[in-house]
This record gives sequence, structure tokens and C-alpha cells, in this order.
Amino acid sequence: MSSGSGHRAPFGARLRAALGSRGNLCVGIDPHPALLEAWGLGVDAAGVAEFSRRSLEAFGDLVPAVKPQVAFFEEHGAAGVAALEEVLDGIASAGALSVADAKRGDIGSTMAGYARAWLRDGSPLACDALTVSPYLGVGALDAAFEAAAGAGRGLFVLARTSNPEAGPLQRAEAGGATVAQSVVDEVARRNATIDRGDDPTSPGPFGVVVGATVDDAPRLDELHGPVLMPGVGQQGATIDDARRIAGPAFGHTLVNVSRHVLRAGPDVAAMRDVVLDLTMAARVTARGDGADGAP
Amino acid sequence: MSSGSGHRAPFGARLRAALGSRGNLCVGIDPHPALLEAWGLGVDAAGVAEFSRRSLEAFGDLVPAVKPQVAFFEEHGAAGVAALEEVLDGIASAGALSVADAKRGDIGSTMAGYARAWLRDGSPLACDALTVSPYLGVGALDAAFEAAAGAGRGLFVLARTSNPEAGPLQRAEAGGATVAQSVVDEVARRNATIDRGDDPTSPGPFGVVVGATVDDAPRLDELHGPVLMPGVGQQGATIDDARRIAGPAFGHTLVNVSRHVLRAGPDVAAMRDVVLDLTMAARVTARGDGADGAP
Repeated sequence: MSSGSGHRAPFGARLRAALGSRGNLCVGIDPHPALLEAWGLGVDAAGVAEFSRRSLEAFGDLVPAVKPQVAFFEEHGAAGVAALEEVLDGIASAGALSVADAKRGDIGSTMAGYARAWLRDGSPLACDALTVSPYLGVGALDAAFEAAAGAGRGLFVLARTSNPEAGPLQRAEAGGATVAQSVVDEVARRNATIDRGDDPTSPGPFGVVVGATVDDAPRLDELHGPVLMPGVGQQGATIDDARRIAGPAFGHTLVNVSRHVLRAGPDVAAMRDVVLDLTMAARVTARGDGADGAP
Repeated sequence: MSSGSGHRAPFGARLRAALGSRGNLCVGIDPHPALLEAWGLGVDAAGVAEFSRRSLEAFGDLVPAVKPQVAFFEEHGAAGVAALEEVLDGIASAGALSVADAKRGDIGSTMAGYARAWLRDGSPLACDALTVSPYLGVGALDAAFEAAAGAGRGLFVLARTSNPEAGPLQRAEAGGATVAQSVVDEVARRNATIDRGDDPTSPGPFGVVVGATVDDAPRLDELHGPVLMPGVGQQGATIDDARRIAGPAFGHTLVNVSRHVLRAGPDVAAMRDVVLDLTMAARVTARGDGADGAP
């Protein structure tokens, strides 16, 4: 596969640079109705747009990646999707990477349609990375792998998620490995096909989603790609859990927090303080010299 | 669970009535770029809207269900989603059921957002039934099950799909059954909770997607819900394959065809003829008195 587009550096290199300068926090933009009401905004596309503007003002220039949750835009129809187009532009203007949390997944020419929607230069919904769902097989997502690699964008494939209902399927046995491990292995195989040119140590463009709360996480040591890790904070996991599960991939892991930041809104300064505190805590702990006693 | 909304009959009853009067064909609206070009239309939201209008003119009044493929609208951003809103209205005006093929799937409050987008009265994207993807567990989709049942709408959960990449995951062993069978069983359990009132023989609102080309289809005899079955026609399966795989569920199975109809366009009369032929062939074969020698 090609290592990137003509005009954009590969996603792995861009992610590594963003993590190096801004820490490893990925903050969500989740304008669900209860939060809109708590912020005194309308439960409509205009409310979603204003929620997103304030969120970006609070942390768009602080974090390496911002993750809009597509469902909360889509529920307002075309007007909500128009608000999402604005948010994706706003994330780029703030110097962060956009991770569109859409969990799309289909086959063949239909998957190619989703790839054009989210990963094609010039698409109104183009993002830096997209979350995708592999129920139809990781191979069914190949149009997205190709589109992402060709445009300097990335993917995060759901592997082992933190919700309790996910266990039976993701732990099911598929040819000697769990489904979750098979997904990681198939993604790793695709990273191995990427020509990294003069930057051989950078992560590949293809990542996985693994929850920080699970006690049966797949091995990530041969992924050579990014990890998107929810579960820290409100769901009970710590940064140390994230570091343990990610192993050597921790250096290119985005630790996702959303509600913990957003519930400090609508005050922009208050959200900003929460993000600064979390960024600092993650850095200190990751270096192993935090107050939690890690050696 | 509630058996329906105050003003709309339950999805199972509506589907059964539609199948009884119009046959069992579900035709897709798949405005992908190559088809738009073949029809002499622009590869943009306006082209997608015109493609959809001609498709509905050709078969909206003939078939029980019409299935817009969401990816091909989403790839044109908010303008494409606005075209999809129009299509969903147009399907209702033509007296058919709309099946939004979106394959959405998420957890908790995010899944509730998708449920509001597609299954809530008054949403601009409200459809009669939605396809959903269970990689996060069938239980993660519960917000959609509840929203659908409460509003007289339906769901089709991906179970065993016809694409070759799907086998390893969907055949994986989860607690003594394959993943595909577990999905069917969990959907069946939810149908069993539905109070069908004075119509106890009608199918429940929760269905599954099973491809007509697979040789390891899950058992559907206890589903008591609808089946959406792609794979007949271009992918090589026959109506007899569909009947064999669906078993007792064949009476509420939607046999999906898309490209076979759409490639006869843009001529409306030509598409109409293809749909009429397919509808007749499915009926004759389903009655077992067709020219194919079935007894």
C-alpha cells in the first residue's frame, strides 16, 4: 500500500508528532440531549453546533485528537450532519487530529462509499481517522484501509470494547484465537504492508479500539499501529491500566475521555482546566514518576 | 416491551400485510458513482436525489419494502443526507416500507442516539426498519430494540452475511453456538418478549440479515421475526435457496435485490418490468408450482 497522499504526511507520523507535543488525551465531543440541556442549549442542530464550538474553544488547541461522536449529530438529520462538517473543519483549524467515531462497517462497493464519505480528500466529512466495525470481517473493510493509507488518514477497528455485552462475541474462538485477537492480528498484517519510507519506526496508519477496563485484552505488541482506548476515568480504569494493556503500543495510544471533561461545561475555562489536569496526570504517570507509586 | 406506538401498527403486522399484497421482494436504492454515471447523472447529492426519484417511480408502488443504502447518500455529506430524508418520505408516500441499510452499532447512550436518529417519530431520518451491526454485542443494541418496538418500527440485526470475508468471525464459537446463531437466538429472545395482542401469529419486530448464498446458515425456526436476505440473483443464489435457508421464516422474508434492477435503469419502464418479473418468479417458486420442478 502507498504510505500517504502527495500532500499529507502519513497518519502514523502525524499522530506521533501530535502525541509528542500535546500528550496522549483524545477528548470526545458528545452533544447528547442531556448535556445540551445541562449547557442551556437547544436539543437541535443549532445546539449541537454551539456545543461543539465551545468544546473546541476549550480544548481544541490542547489535545492531540478530538473525537466527535457521530450518532449525536446524525440524530438531527442533515442539519446535524452539516454541524459535523463544521466541527471537522474546526478540529483541523485548532491543530488537532479528528477521529470521527462512526463505527461504520459494510462490504465491497458499499464500504467503498463509506470510505469516500470519511477518508477522501474533498469530502465534506473527511476526517483524520475513522472508527470502523468488523462484524462483516476485517477483510470487508479493505476499501477503507486502502482509502486511508492512500490519503494519509487512519482507521481504528473495534477489537475488544469495554462494554459488558461485548464479551461473548469478542471472546469467541476463531481459528485458535479470540475474535478480538484475530481483529488485532489482521490489522497488524495490514500495517506490515505499509511502506514507511524514511520513517521506519513510526506507527502504521491502522489502529484498534481496546477498552482500558477489560481483563482479557488482546496482545498489542505486534500491532505497530495506534490504539484508541476508552474506559479511563468514569468507567473505572486508570492511566496505569491503559499503559499495562497497551504495552509497547502505549507510545501511540490515544486515551479517550469525554463525559469527564464535558460535564465541566458549558464554562470554557472550567473544561480547559480539566483537560490540562488530565493531560498532566497522564504524562506524569506515563513517565512512571507519578504520585501513585509506580516505579 | 410495548407492542407498538399509539398510532402505528407493529412492524411485524405491517410487514406481513405488505408481503401479502406485494410479494416478498425488497429492492435497494444504491446510487453509487458508477450507476449515477451510467444513468447520465451527476456524482453529487442532486444526482443521488434524481436517481432515487426515478427508482421510486419505477418500483415504489410495486414492492413491499425499499432499502436505501445509506453509504451512498452519506458520501455526499449533509446534502446527501438531505436527499436521504426525501427518499424516506417518498418510500412512505409510495406505500412501501423503508429499510434504512445503515448497519449502525454502538453502546449505551450512543446507541440511543442512533435509535433517535432512525427510529424516533419526528426524526427527519425515521425509517420503518433499520439494519444494525452486533460487534459490540446484541445487548449493546438494546436502546434500538426498545425504540423500535415502542414506535411500531423494526430492526434487522446482521447475523450471517454472504460476503466471503465474514466466515471466520460469524462462525466463531461462542458458548456452544456460532456467533451467527447466538445473534439469531438473542434476537429471538427479544421477539418473545413482545406482546402481540390480538395478532399472536404475526412476526415480532426484530429480524436478522442472513445471506442466501451461505452453506452454514443459522437456524431460523424459532426467530418468529422477519429476515432480510441478500444474495439472490447477481450473487448466485436462487429463490429456492432463500426458501430453504429461511425455513418457516420464509413467509416473512424480504428477498433483497438491488443491482439486478438498477442496472436496467435509467429507463423507468425497463426497471418496472424487471421488478414485475422478479416478483412473479418469486411468487410462483414460493408456491412450489414453478417451472423449476419443485413439487
